[in-house]
Amino acid sequence: MGIHQYFQSLSDLENIYRCPGKFKYQEHSVAEHSFKVTQIAQFFGNVEEQAGNTVNWRGLYERALNHDYSELFIGDIKTPVKYATTELREMLSEVEESMTQNFIEREIPNEFQPIYRHLLKEGKDTTLEGKILAISDKVDLLYESFGEIRKGNPENIFVEIYSEALATIYEYRDMESVKYFLREILPDMLGEKGIRKTDLPELTAEITTKALRGE
Amino acid sequence: MGIHQYFQSLSDLENIYRCPGKFKYQEHSVAEHSFKVTQIAQFFGNVEEQAGNTVNWRGLYERALNHDYSELFIGDIKTPVKYATTELREMLSEVEESMTQNFIEREIPNEFQPIYRHLLKEGKDTTLEGKILAISDKVDLLYESFGEIRKGNPENIFVEIYSEALATIYEYRDMESVKYFLREILPDMLGEKGIRKTDLPELTAEITTKALRGE
Amino acid sequence: MGIHQYFQSLSDLENIYRCPGKFKYQEHSVAEHSFKVTQIAQFFGNVEEQAGNTVNWRGLYERALNHDYSELFIGDIKTPVKYATTELREMLSEVEESMTQNFIEREIPNEFQPIYRHLLKEGKDTTLEGKILAISDKVDLLYESFGEIRKGNPENIFVEIYSEALATIYEYRDMESVKYFLREILPDMLGEKGIRKTDLPELTAEITTKALRGE
Amino acid sequence: MGIHQYFQSLSDLENIYRCPGKFKYQEHSVAEHSFKVTQIAQFFGNVEEQAGNTVNWRGLYERALNHDYSELFIGDIKTPVKYATTELREMLSEVEESMTQNFIEREIPNEFQPIYRHLLKEGKDTTLEGKILAISDKVDLLYESFGEIRKGNPENIFVEIYSEALATIYEYRDMESVKYFLREILPDMLGEKGIRKTDLPELTAEITTKALRGE
Amino acid sequence: MGIHQYFQSLSDLENIYRCPGKFKYQEHSVAEHSFKVTQIAQFFGNVEEQAGNTVNWRGLYERALNHDYSELFIGDIKTPVKYATTELREMLSEVEESMTQNFIEREIPNEFQPIYRHLLKEGKDTTLEGKILAISDKVDLLYESFGEIRKGNPENIFVEIYSEALATIYEYRDMESVKYFLREILPDMLGEKGIRKTDLPELTAEITTKALRGE
Amino acid sequence: MGIHQYFQSLSDLENIYRCPGKFKYQEHSVAEHSFKVTQIAQFFGNVEEQAGNTVNWRGLYERALNHDYSELFIGDIKTPVKYATTELREMLSEVEESMTQNFIEREIPNEFQPIYRHLLKEGKDTTLEGKILAISDKVDLLYESFGEIRKGNPENIFVEIYSEALATIYEYRDMESVKYFLREILPDMLGEKGIRKTDLPELTAEITTKALRGE
Repeated sequence: MGIHQYFQSLSDLENIYRCPGKFKYQEHSVAEHSFKVTQIAQFFGNVEEQAGNTVNWRGLYERALNHDYSELFIGDIKTPVKYATTELREMLSEVEESMTQNFIEREIPNEFQPIYRHLLKEGKDTTLEGKILAISDKVDLLYESFGEIRKGNPENIFVEIYSEALATIYEYRDMESVKYFLREILPDMLGEKGIRKTDLPELTAEITTKALRGE
Repeated sequence: MGIHQYFQSLSDLENIYRCPGKFKYQEHSVAEHSFKVTQIAQFFGNVEEQAGNTVNWRGLYERALNHDYSELFIGDIKTPVKYATTELREMLSEVEESMTQNFIEREIPNEFQPIYRHLLKEGKDTTLEGKILAISDKVDLLYESFGEIRKGNPENIFVEIYSEALATIYEYRDMESVKYFLREILPDMLGEKGIRKTDLPELTAEITTKALRGE
Repeated sequence: MGIHQYFQSLSDLENIYRCPGKFKYQEHSVAEHSFKVTQIAQFFGNVEEQAGNTVNWRGLYERALNHDYSELFIGDIKTPVKYATTELREMLSEVEESMTQNFIEREIPNEFQPIYRHLLKEGKDTTLEGKILAISDKVDLLYESFGEIRKGNPENIFVEIYSEALATIYEYRDMESVKYFLREILPDMLGEKGIRKTDLPELTAEITTKALRGE
Repeated sequence: MGIHQYFQSLSDLENIYRCPGKFKYQEHSVAEHSFKVTQIAQFFGNVEEQAGNTVNWRGLYERALNHDYSELFIGDIKTPVKYATTELREMLSEVEESMTQNFIEREIPNEFQPIYRHLLKEGKDTTLEGKILAISDKVDLLYESFGEIRKGNPENIFVEIYSEALATIYEYRDMESVKYFLREILPDMLGEKGIRKTDLPELTAEITTKALRGE
Repeated sequence: MGIHQYFQSLSDLENIYRCPGKFKYQEHSVAEHSFKVTQIAQFFGNVEEQAGNTVNWRGLYERALNHDYSELFIGDIKTPVKYATTELREMLSEVEESMTQNFIEREIPNEFQPIYRHLLKEGKDTTLEGKILAISDKVDLLYESFGEIRKGNPENIFVEIYSEALATIYEYRDMESVKYFLREILPDMLGEKGIRKTDLPELTAEITTKALRGE
Repeated sequence: MGIHQYFQSLSDLENIYRCPGKFKYQEHSVAEHSFKVTQIAQFFGNVEEQAGNTVNWRGLYERALNHDYSELFIGDIKTPVKYATTELREMLSEVEESMTQNFIEREIPNEFQPIYRHLLKEGKDTTLEGKILAISDKVDLLYESFGEIRKGNPENIFVEIYSEALATIYEYRDMESVKYFLREILPDMLGEKGIRKTDLPELTAEITTKALRGE
């Protein structure tokens, strides 16, 4: 019934929490995650631009800002659920996609429907902007799990998330953004007080080595 | 990897909240809902027994206690999502069912697998116990939405939940339990101070009338 | 004033927290604890049955589900309060018992009063079901304190609770349920990542040894 | 084992909430209540002094600051529990008193024990300071219940608390403090926007009338 | 000491709440507010573009995303504090500005300092993008206060915020975005169930009339 | 508009949290902090009296109880903000002071204005009572940071707060109160289980040594 519904739905994204029930030290709403991913993507866009690459800024911001809007419909269930097979995950993805389409048809006025179909489509592809989104999403996930591990949360799920996020970032290691991240940011992260008491340094070395060996 | 995982998973049910982000006055975890449904079912079992019906108590408690265990896997997404079609809902139900099976195979020791396959299967059927579960689940939902409406929560979703829950209870109006509920409990509920300022009395009358007319 | 009051009181049990102010990582309401104890009792009932013992299932579920209902009246003050003597504890117990009786007389309709007098009486006795309740209550307490210790909560109260709970469970070590617990579940619990950094393995060994020596 | 335990116990008073589970809009810890009561007592002390009465300031502050310290031991269970008789309440009071004595003997060093026995004894008596404590405690309770009623909390318990608190204040209507309260503060309170939609104006008039008639 | 500090600071914005202690129904972190303002600005940018205006998209997203980053330093104290004069507000603004400069110099690597000086400067100016930011910020504030009023929060501060926000939006009524907002969105907002029981319709009419009269 | 506003403002102090977003294990409102500081000051007053010093009790309680009331206006921003210079801190202090004066003029009735000007002025000076306030404020801060460090919070800010608080207490080491604190309380604090795993013992020794050397 119009943009009022859409504006109001933004508030609902403040009430959907990522990995519900798992974070013990700091919870993150989908709205907050989207903000941080857009900030991170903004930084990486600047890195790419300084390195001489052309960034489609509008496209980059659009992808980052809207990439998790559809979690409004079935919530955050893409994070590793142990008992889901690939097939089950794909089914969930289809369900989410269909609900997004139903939402656009029912709430967005006709003249804006093409725009929102564009804004709410999957943004991770092989363009520079698609790749910046992919790594920014993982960098935020890395920070979220890092925050828990550093504060002593022993749930193994955060080690799994950290590992999976870092391995994915590593796959993009030819990008200037990732080079900067690995050279300047990751060492500072692992240099934080108290990290040496955790398994993160070894874990990080291990993931990096595996990646280099192409495993 | 064994019953330890299962016992620990019970704590996860304390962290999954029903209708996340909607309840403003009192939130309800899946563990709490399961407790209340089992208490309600226990009461209705006694009503049926006093009315001369034979209750399979073990079966009744099993159904009530375990009926939402599988929300562990994809959380509480069965509650009315506006943009889901029946087909999408069925897909979600299948996903949940498959994950439950995966869980039993991977965590429950062989000798207990048949028991947990039995305990975690859908409990709402046409037996007396299945019907008591069906109405107890709705009575708790009715109370949950009643609590919000009574305290002034203007979200329309609670009116929808109240209506849907009451209409479903009404379908079972031949049962002794439902007769008791409609005769003794519902009037007390609507007699609470401050209810007259809400739309609940009219809404309730309307739902009842519709049901009687067979709409 | 009727069953409506009783149904509504179930929600109050969602608002009474165990050991208020002590749990830092996960709080547990009385409703949640009751759910978990009933689930644990259900499992131990199946263990006993597989071992050839006859379980009165109705009785078992009744005891587990209702065993803490009376905390509604004076809350959770049975957990170790340092400055209470045995005599003071007994006085508190009497107060709770009296309030439960007052509640039944004032809220439960006459025809259900005998049933609720039966349901709300102390369920821990020397029957198999009474003993299963006793250990299930302690197993949940063990898990609750384990959760805090494992996550690094340094409050000594959780070490005390863990010790007291395990020692009590150990007293019932002739039961099939406890044998299963000690043989299959406890080792998995202590095998969790990060437990070796805590004092739990030594503590557990110590409690077990003391128990065997009959101290 | 010393003042360290005592200082640390102050933090526990931040974790004990008044009427647990009842306040929906704003919760109040015992530490916060004690702060507010002492502030209110400080104001009333100034009113009395301006009216020419002599205030023992040290005594007044001591009474107000420490009056609920002993809730540390059995928590806030003095607030109206429907199913408690006068006798049961007295038993609870004795239990609390005994635990306070046990605490002083075990934690407070010998040289400070007489001081803390004095500080932690019941402060409400017929002295001016005892009466200022009595009304300050009720004024804060009045504000706490007023806050809930004003925001729309329909729980009858807050109307009961408001009524009981106001009636008690009214009993002290010969005091200058209470005269000031009834003449200057209460009308401002009832003049708050939105109060006319509640039952407070009638309720207040009724309580006042009853009090004047000596009922 | 580098971008790691910057990335980590994004999490701190999840912990700074707007109008701390005032929102009773839904709290909003600065991170969440920034997300919503950027979403709203994105929509209004599309409205302007459809109306034939040229939007500098990079500039628009930069302004919206970063406009409240500096709340990291002294928190959200710009919202109406009754006892602050204009002069005091300006002093606070200067303090915030200085701390932002100190932060950039100490944390942002040299090569990115010019970029972050640009990103973190005040974004509300007379350009189209500056004006879209100004109204988007107010539209979110309007929604935040609307949410509280609609749910029954009687604190007058939300009526003040609503009025101030709407009056500011109205000042920009020559913009296509504001025309769309007033014509399509505001009526839907005021058409929500339960709004007629509040003072919002009259209040809105009054603000609009005043604005038209040029008061 | 009168004392009603003042009494109601006490509740606002329950909603202002110290170091917002930093405490992970236990948050402290300004109301709670004020209560604890007054309790600590009460103890130190008794220590001074037992040592033969004369304590102005009214003055001591007044200072402790009211010392942070003015945080009502700009919240808790005095705690170490990394990017604030001394000059910026002074500006903030002036802002707070001005708002306090504006508050007294607008809310406190004429006849009580001199009293509240006296009560709300800065209480830390060179009198015995001023010095007891200064150390009591720091002792509570020490306990607050101690609580986080002990529970494993790795945020460096708590080490900084602990160090700064202890160093300030040490400056007053000629006072009887501080002698008692250093001789009896601090050793018990550092003797708590689990403290040896933290850096607190070394840190404490280092601060003490520095202080003695007059650095």
